[in-house]
This record gives sequence, structure tokens and C-alpha cells, in this order.
Amino acid sequence: MGEFDLIARYFTRPVRRAALGVGDDCALLAALAPGMRLAVSSDMLVQGRHFFAGTDARRLGHKALAVNLSDLAACGARPLAFTLALALPNIDAAWLEDFAAGLLALADAHDCELVGGDTTQGPLNICITVMGEVPAGQALLRSGAQPGDDIYVSGTLGDARLALEALQGHIHLAPGVLAGAQQRLEAPTPRVALGQALRGVATSALDVSDGLLGDLGHILRASGVGACIDTSVTTKLIAANACGASAGALLDLDLLRQCTLAGGDDYELAFTAAPAARASVAAAAHASATPVTRIGTIESTPGLRLIDAHGLPLVQRYASFDHFA
Amino acid sequence: MGEFDLIARYFTRPVRRAALGVGDDCALLAALAPGMRLAVSSDMLVQGRHFFAGTDARRLGHKALAVNLSDLAACGARPLAFTLALALPNIDAAWLEDFAAGLLALADAHDCELVGGDTTQGPLNICITVMGEVPAGQALLRSGAQPGDDIYVSGTLGDARLALEALQGHIHLAPGVLAGAQQRLEAPTPRVALGQALRGVATSALDVSDGLLGDLGHILRASGVGACIDTSVTTKLIAANACGASAGALLDLDLLRQCTLAGGDDYELAFTAAPAARASVAAAAHASATPVTRIGTIESTPGLRLIDAHGLPLVQRYASFDHFA
Repeated sequence: MGEFDLIARYFTRPVRRAALGVGDDCALLAALAPGMRLAVSSDMLVQGRHFFAGTDARRLGHKALAVNLSDLAACGARPLAFTLALALPNIDAAWLEDFAAGLLALADAHDCELVGGDTTQGPLNICITVMGEVPAGQALLRSGAQPGDDIYVSGTLGDARLALEALQGHIHLAPGVLAGAQQRLEAPTPRVALGQALRGVATSALDVSDGLLGDLGHILRASGVGACIDTSVTTKLIAANACGASAGALLDLDLLRQCTLAGGDDYELAFTAAPAARASVAAAAHASATPVTRIGTIESTPGLRLIDAHGLPLVQRYASFDHFA
Repeated sequence: MGEFDLIARYFTRPVRRAALGVGDDCALLAALAPGMRLAVSSDMLVQGRHFFAGTDARRLGHKALAVNLSDLAACGARPLAFTLALALPNIDAAWLEDFAAGLLALADAHDCELVGGDTTQGPLNICITVMGEVPAGQALLRSGAQPGDDIYVSGTLGDARLALEALQGHIHLAPGVLAGAQQRLEAPTPRVALGQALRGVATSALDVSDGLLGDLGHILRASGVGACIDTSVTTKLIAANACGASAGALLDLDLLRQCTLAGGDDYELAFTAAPAARASVAAAAHASATPVTRIGTIESTPGLRLIDAHGLPLVQRYASFDHFA
């Protein structure tokens, strides 16, 4: 199989929304409705860095698009289309079939069309650029948090990191707990519906990919504010602990804090909203069938403060993920 | 230097056209004017595959964007914006400075704004997604060639491949000849102005990246036609031979044919137009200050036929570049 057969076989489908899809020099997309902005984001996944060699190809296809859709979600944008650039060490038909199945299943679930891309030989590398639309002036930015705002996070936190620690042999998890956590690591759920429901409600938002505290730091810097986070709330947001509790093996508090505060790969939304908007936040969560939890408060004093279950300050520092640190 | 310092230092500039540039979850672009289409293309460059380790970083920055602009040119689109995803083995400040300089100089020359992207650690890999605009119904496609149409190619052909052969030690070139050919290999010129000037003139177009004959094959298949190419014309399109002639060392005819017909990395436009449009083609070439040469004719019989200076058929086959062949 050559390059063009590969594209035709695994990545070419009838055009739906696009004016022109895979197979020419460019894809062509219809103009957005008046008053809309085009939201664009690119993420690159590298083997050995973002995923282990041998990761299930179907989950990898899912994750490669999920992390991009998560960026659209963080802006409150509706997905439209994406391009896929793929460097492969060789052509493995079974791998490609699974990868494409996972990728396109998630794409279909979000009505996000694969319109073009590139394939080449090289160390396994997946680069997706996703495009979406958001009404002008309604995109959720990192820069709008105000002192007094509540801070929220969607879904669960820390399970992906917990799985990573176990897969790297640093901790042991019961098989059932590991399976659940590994699913979160390898097949995250982009909070696309929640992001759109939060337009006009959240004052700032981003997606948690490098760890909650580090990512919240981007909001604080962009907004010129500080924050206080109740770690007794965030430590409960790990899903694995519920499984662990039922198995009679609760996780150690230090590990819980590490995973939930600085875990990485969560792909949940962290966002802020005025206290007056609590009912609207609850309505957005309900409308998108996505749990959200209030975890702290934006303050005018710069910096990020952590408190424990007794309201006492927690002095430990948690490093955010940095690809070059 | 960490990931975010790197982005801030080398790849963040004041926003020009975009509504929101580098630094949030997504970039935001203004809606296109009514009646415009968004043209999108992604290309991924892998070290050892698309460029040698140690390639001049400034030229590499130029080339990474040039090959994407070339896809916009092939559609007749006007460049607007691009994202850059970059996997780097490590942070080399001097390399990054040169890479960004080459990249952004070409971006500025085409008023194409860097609006976002991603950086990660990994084997050197550069993935750019470029966006442009083209009036609906006016994009140059691969599928419009008609029997009787003239076939044209812009600029010169084969010098990039000639440089590659020399750099791989297969042939020897005089230093002056190599320098000129190497410039074509490492810093190609995307034919952006010509592409736009050919809207409404060319019946089909693409950019020549994998070799003239292989790429023309895409037009022939998409258009359901065949072609005859005069190789006595195409062999003259190599720039290096002029230098070679002045140095008293003309290139061998077989090598000339290989380089010009199946060289790869030319990033010239190949296009078709009706004989009645010859004056319009000449005007487009003049308006864009880009030489074009008529090299053959579209025929109704499928297949690609080559003739020599005497009009006699050339039976040799030339393989197009395939990343997995």
C-alpha cells in the first residue's frame, strides 16, 4: 500500500459539510455565518511523550482528536472540521484501521469533518488542527476572571495521572481501578457541550491538560488575579478513589493531591463565573449532562493559595507539566 | 527556557488580522467576506525524510511554510493565517531564532499570520496548517482539465532533486551549481501570486511536490483525461544546466529527465488552460512576475505519454515520490 492508497482507504469519506474534502491541494470550507469567528487549534502527539508505544490504536485515534476538541470546548466553540497530519514508521493495516475507527467515531459524535491532511514516513507523530465556530465576542477566554468569581472544574481529575504512575510502575493499582483510570488517560472526553453551554456564563475558561494548578495559573496571569483552591474538594474529584474505597484500598492523600492538582491529561474544563451565575452554571452543567464542581474563589491578590479540609493553608508546591522542563 | 517561554519568545507577536492570536486555547479568526471559501492545508516535515539533519534553520523555517503556501497557491487562494506545531529534541536558542526568522519572514512577505500551535519534545517534526481564502467557485481544482487544454508549469524544474543527488553523493556538481540547486531544495518559492492570477484562467492546477509526472497523474485521474508531455521542453527547465553550460559541464540527458520529470520538491505550479486562454495565461504570468512554460497537451485517451525533441515516444517510466514506496 502506498501513501495515496492509504489516504483513500482509511481517511477519505464522502464530503458532508465541506465544499471540498480530502484529495486536492486544499480543503475548502463554506464561509461561516455572519457574526461568527473561526476558532483554530493544533495539537501534536508524539510517541513516548504523549502516549506509550503499543497504546491501543483505537484509543489513540480517539485521543488525538479529543485533545483538540477539548481546546474548542475551552473556547465555547462548536466543532466543524479538522485536518490530520500523520507520520508513521511503516504502514500497518490493522493499526491504521483501528486508529481511523477511533478517530472517526469521535469525529462523527461531534459532527466534525476530516477534510484533509498529510501522511509521511517518520517516527510516529499525530498532528491535528481543528476548526470550529463561535459567535463573535462570546468565546471563552483565559483573561476574563474577576475577583470574587467562583472557580469550577468539570468531571473528574487525576485519574489519567494515576494510570500513568501505575503504568510506569511507581504505584500498584487493583486491575479494576487501573482499567478505569487507564481509560481516562487513553480516551479522554472533551467537554464540547459544556463549553458551548458556558458561553455568556463563564468569565474565563481553559482545558486542563498539564495539571489543574499550572493551567489555572494561565487564567490567573491572563486575568491579573489570584485564587484560593479548596483541596479537600479537589481530592474528591478522582474517580479511582471510589473504586478503591469499594475495594478497601483508599489512595494515599499525598498521591491524591499530586494527581488531582498537578496530574495532567485530564481534559476537563476549568472555568470561572460570578457567584450570581451559580444557577446558570448549574443549568449549563445539566444541559450538557456534565458534572461540575466548585473548587475555589478568584481573589485580587496575585498567586495561587491552597487550603485543606480545615481551611488551613497547604504549603506544598506542585509543578505543572512542561515538555521541556 | 520552558515551553511557554519558548512560545512567548520566538512565536508570539502582536495580533494583526486575527481576532485572537497565540496564547489562548484557540486562535480566533474573523469571518470571511460573504462568498468566500476557507482553503485549508496541512503539511508535516520530518527530519531525515524531508530535510537532512543539520539543514540551515532559517531555510527550514522558510521551507516549512513555503510548502504549505504552495498548496494555497495551487488552489488560487490568498494566504490568511497558519498554525505551527513543532516537536523539538531539545531547546536550542540559536536554532529557534533562525528557524523563526526564516518562517516569519516568509509569513510577512505573504501577509500570513502565525495564530497558534503547539510545541513538544520529540524527534524534530514541523507541522504547519495554513488557511487562506478564495472566492466560491473559483478555486483551482485538479478535476477540471479538458482534452485539448495546454499544460503549463511555472518557473524551473529539477534543481531540488539535482541538489539532493549531489548531497547524497550520487553525482558531483561544481560548487556554484550546487549552491544554486541547494537553494531551490531548501528554500523553495511558493507561487502564491501566480495561483491567484490563474483564477478564471486555468482549468486545473496543483503544486509539483512529488515530481512532475506523478503529480500530473493526479490531474489526469481527477479529470478523467490523458496527456502528452514534450520532454525536450521540460529538460530545459532545470536552472542548473545554465550554470553548468557556463562552466563547460552540461548535465547528462538521463539525469536531466529524471530530475525534471520525477524530481520532487519543486513547489512549482502545474496547470492546464484552454488554447484560447494563452494570452490570459501570459498575462497572469506577467502580472505575477512568474515565468510559465507550455510543456504539453491534455488528450482524451487516458495515460501520460512522453515525447522527445523529435516528437518520438519516450518509453522510460519515471516513478513519483511516495513516502511509503
